[in-house]
Amino acid sequence: MQRYKLTLAYDGTPFSGWQTQKNAVTLQAVIEAQLEVLLRHTVALTGAGRTDAGVHAEGQVAHFETPHLLELFSFFSSLNALLPQEIRLIDIQLVPATFHARYSAISKEYHYHVDLGRTYNPFKKLYSYHHPQPLDLHAIEDGCRYLQGTHDFTSFANKALEGCAAKNAIRTLFRVDLKEEAPGFRLEFEGNGFLYKMVRNMTGVLLDIGKKRRSAESILSLFKAKDRSQSSMAAPAKGLCLIHVRYP
Amino acid sequence: MQRYKLTLAYDGTPFSGWQTQKNAVTLQAVIEAQLEVLLRHTVALTGAGRTDAGVHAEGQVAHFETPHLLELFSFFSSLNALLPQEIRLIDIQLVPATFHARYSAISKEYHYHVDLGRTYNPFKKLYSYHHPQPLDLHAIEDGCRYLQGTHDFTSFANKALEGCAAKNAIRTLFRVDLKEEAPGFRLEFEGNGFLYKMVRNMTGVLLDIGKKRRSAESILSLFKAKDRSQSSMAAPAKGLCLIHVRYP
Repeated sequence: MQRYKLTLAYDGTPFSGWQTQKNAVTLQAVIEAQLEVLLRHTVALTGAGRTDAGVHAEGQVAHFETPHLLELFSFFSSLNALLPQEIRLIDIQLVPATFHARYSAISKEYHYHVDLGRTYNPFKKLYSYHHPQPLDLHAIEDGCRYLQGTHDFTSFANKALEGCAAKNAIRTLFRVDLKEEAPGFRLEFEGNGFLYKMVRNMTGVLLDIGKKRRSAESILSLFKAKDRSQSSMAAPAKGLCLIHVRYP
Repeated sequence: MQRYKLTLAYDGTPFSGWQTQKNAVTLQAVIEAQLEVLLRHTVALTGAGRTDAGVHAEGQVAHFETPHLLELFSFFSSLNALLPQEIRLIDIQLVPATFHARYSAISKEYHYHVDLGRTYNPFKKLYSYHHPQPLDLHAIEDGCRYLQGTHDFTSFANKALEGCAAKNAIRTLFRVDLKEEAPGFRLEFEGNGFLYKMVRNMTGVLLDIGKKRRSAESILSLFKAKDRSQSSMAAPAKGLCLIHVRYP
């Protein structure tokens, strides 16, 4: 068997998230179906991150196996010709059988875009959260510093509906940064793993800090409390994008 | 009568261009209709640039007159609430009766986006021209330098279908620049006026120069020839955006 690594970009707007579900159009199912057209056998595609409904990706990674040795250049073009225009294969590589899109990853990077313009930007409407009132960006930066490091993120994780709960909620965020992106900003999160809805929940807390609804220090109490209900509302999915997955 | 200046951003994808036509959904007609809902009288809206079907704007300017003295903040919100989501009012100002969106403009700036990625970016698909083969960017920069300055742009102008032909084809381009925008570039055109389809025709010539189908120097012969048929195909509308209109 040969194992292939795919790098994918997608506009998540029309999809019910990455992971296959009954009665829903998901990225995993749509891509598997087109791989099956080309390979003429059943394909199981494993993604690095299970992006939620409406979440985008510039660099999602996934792997699959096939007995065929593929001519990569023509396979790349054929798969892009079959995929809907919201999904683009950016790269395909032959990888060792030990490679696993999720378990081999050493870090993932997510960006969350916030548009502070007086009115939303019509070109960014589906890719950012619009908040026309001013936010305290210094307080949000303080919040970023509290989130960085190794913590128990239970208060920032939603319970997954199906039986794929993580063994523990301890994760390391290598970097949480606020970068200006006029007329707004983006939050950059890089970490060794993310729990279900963790980035949107952290963003929700940071937005509440910017709105002066809670203090940056309150993140310390959230780490201690291990209670999602003490945290903030998840930020809307459309502002979030999986940028990059790193491997050794 | 009061005269108001509107600054507008729009995604041109679903519209048949700026200018009102029979049996077509145009930006001018859509915006006039919503102004009429708010003002309860007939409104004539004059735009600075008549963008083609599929062309976008980040900073189109238009003016209209009304006997009402408007409360600008609430009018701004009301008009944005009525406009379709592809059109956003960015700013509204009361201006003297001598202000004219088109005739008072001292320059306009257009950008043309070219995506050179191996596959198109799903987030930029409607806002750039995708060309996966390499282009000679140095030759394109040479072409930009030939276009700059005051010339007769007859070879770069399509004949307008209706009776709005310009008196002469002499225009001044203050600036034509190529700026990198990975994985591609954008062309920036700033000038005192643009003929019908002139930016898309200049871009078509520059792309042909990058593809080695014609030389940068051939622009000199095009200025002399004053013959559109010797020029290149217009570049696709979707890559073009009216960025800014400057006034004294």
